[in-house]
Amino acid sequence: MPNQPSIGLVKTQYHTLAAPLILQNGEALTGVRIAYETYGGLNAARDNAVLVCHALSGDAHAAGYHAEAAKPGWWDMMIGPGKGIDTERYFVICVNVIGGCGGTTGPSSLNPSAGRPFGSDFPLITVADMVQVQALLLDHLGIDRLHAAAGGSMGGMQALQWAVSFPERVGSIAAIATCHRHGAQQIAFNEVGRRAITADPEWRGGHYYEGNGPSHGLAVARMIGHITYLSEIGMMAKFGRRVRRTAEDKFAPAYEVETYLTYQGESFVQRFDANSYLYITKALDTFDLAAESGSLEAALRPYKGRILLVSFSSDWLYPPAQAKEIARAARRAGGDATYCEIQSDYGHDAFLLENGRLAPLVAGFLAHSTPGGTLSPDLSYPVS
Amino acid sequence: MPNQPSIGLVKTQYHTLAAPLILQNGEALTGVRIAYETYGGLNAARDNAVLVCHALSGDAHAAGYHAEAAKPGWWDMMIGPGKGIDTERYFVICVNVIGGCGGTTGPSSLNPSAGRPFGSDFPLITVADMVQVQALLLDHLGIDRLHAAAGGSMGGMQALQWAVSFPERVGSIAAIATCHRHGAQQIAFNEVGRRAITADPEWRGGHYYEGNGPSHGLAVARMIGHITYLSEIGMMAKFGRRVRRTAEDKFAPAYEVETYLTYQGESFVQRFDANSYLYITKALDTFDLAAESGSLEAALRPYKGRILLVSFSSDWLYPPAQAKEIARAARRAGGDATYCEIQSDYGHDAFLLENGRLAPLVAGFLAHSTPGGTLSPDLSYPVS
Repeated sequence: MPNQPSIGLVKTQYHTLAAPLILQNGEALTGVRIAYETYGGLNAARDNAVLVCHALSGDAHAAGYHAEAAKPGWWDMMIGPGKGIDTERYFVICVNVIGGCGGTTGPSSLNPSAGRPFGSDFPLITVADMVQVQALLLDHLGIDRLHAAAGGSMGGMQALQWAVSFPERVGSIAAIATCHRHGAQQIAFNEVGRRAITADPEWRGGHYYEGNGPSHGLAVARMIGHITYLSEIGMMAKFGRRVRRTAEDKFAPAYEVETYLTYQGESFVQRFDANSYLYITKALDTFDLAAESGSLEAALRPYKGRILLVSFSSDWLYPPAQAKEIARAARRAGGDATYCEIQSDYGHDAFLLENGRLAPLVAGFLAHSTPGGTLSPDLSYPVS
Repeated sequence: MPNQPSIGLVKTQYHTLAAPLILQNGEALTGVRIAYETYGGLNAARDNAVLVCHALSGDAHAAGYHAEAAKPGWWDMMIGPGKGIDTERYFVICVNVIGGCGGTTGPSSLNPSAGRPFGSDFPLITVADMVQVQALLLDHLGIDRLHAAAGGSMGGMQALQWAVSFPERVGSIAAIATCHRHGAQQIAFNEVGRRAITADPEWRGGHYYEGNGPSHGLAVARMIGHITYLSEIGMMAKFGRRVRRTAEDKFAPAYEVETYLTYQGESFVQRFDANSYLYITKALDTFDLAAESGSLEAALRPYKGRILLVSFSSDWLYPPAQAKEIARAARRAGGDATYCEIQSDYGHDAFLLENGRLAPLVAGFLAHSTPGGTLSPDLSYPVS
């Protein structure tokens, strides 16, 4: 699949909910604003919508370019005319998650009852809450049923949550590099990141918006995250033991891998809110698709659409075994689950980097995911 | 091998070097104090000394009990009468590393030329410097040649460094759960830990000894370390997704794995100096046994003693492949290297936990490691 042109200039749109949003924990949020983008056109039957769900640090800007921005949206390689998620066929929607900092209401939003940003007074949110907000936006857009929901990492969790929260409203699910719940190590990495933030004195108990904010803590958290996004072998290939420059002091970054992580940490601080990092990682850790029903199989039983699960061989943050577990449970529940493992040294980041192999897989899946359809021979595409 | 009694009460001893210590980078340190412990007795031939080298957070107190202490030394299971390193046969020596905080001169020691602790004015040290200090202590003790040098993790690096720095002075090397140089991911984890410390405002550029010290940063660094010491499977078996208690606030530790890491971080701060953590992890990252000679094979060629390399199947911090690489290089250099992989779910921590299988292996190796000796059939001990 050759590289296709971008969808071009796009703009983030906003919708404010008229009714209070009742969260999974029972708390209510009033005046919730939803930031979203759409690409392509909704057809007359209103049945060609594909919801794309973003990962931890993503936002509603999945494809195309914002005016005067040099970089396109986070999944521009996948979304556009003739691409894996083809905007000439599908009406693509991407929504910034509740609790985020990309325009949807989150901890940095004004708390109307306090006259200051929510900070740590923002209620804890869940992946189910993220999905509920997306469903409320679909109501606003007049879309009863999605052709598909797709996403990688936390986006994959949201896609899977659609199958459980709204099984009748989604035709198929493409869940990439994800899992149905975190294990102890996944929680542990997030917890250390959270600790780095809350231990930063500039966090100030979560009410830092008039100060500098916990930029050091957030940078450390992001650095930890980045280690888990790359594979050991990929990191060694990319950086080795090369020294970038003579460090001006003893503990300044010296190895290339150190300057890379430092850059990733420092640039993240410019674009992400530390409290959102806390709330969203907590949503990742509490996510457990099997919790309510008692088993993953029971949770997936009501869902009658197709499920595509893709993992990457060197992804140790969301290893292949976790995706296989979902596929097996879906099949035991009588569902139609396809599992594909793509060989890659890019680790978890592969879901954004291995587009050459991932895009045709997603395209074939979307094209044949209508109920009663059959999987195309395209799906025997060499994914090894 | 049944559990044997401890060596009993022991005391840390001290020796101050009369001459300045010239470090690998050319800098000199005057009045270096060396903290060490010994167990068992030196024989008349003075040829039964076994040097035990400690890991990142260890110290000279490897075995036995300090007066009024509830816990024995860090390798008490391995060292004692009838144990893996048998104090009825060997004169065991353990030395706190230069740069440490267990009694040997380090960044928290008084800088005589400044009238305050060195802090970040302490020179950068290397694993070769640690080994040189050990050799100077042997001079003081009147020991020309070690029967063996043994250690796990950073202790294994020191043991291997002995083969390169003083090939004539050590009869055999037991290097456990270690490597000959860090790869990018290993550097990355250490760098994030260092960043957590230096970004803590209480670090104060390394001169914090009159203040509180960067306790939050050091705790975060230790938490990151602990994730790498456990395997994913071992962590899941130990903690699962169990919730320890209802968190009193949103971002307090809730999952058992979180409270475990929090405890590990907070208790570490009570016993370890943050600057030592910086200096020692930097020594780990700069350690490269192959650097001077151009290849590991060339580095090991002068060494004529036996080498035992042990790794643990689930150790992803120092994975088996790295130990195998050393064994292959030693054999290419004409050396006598034995490689053993012990199946274990304990990850890197296995080197302290799998004593039941490790101790007989070390015992058999030490008993047959005199030049010209042959490996005992004991070494076919099932290490699967």
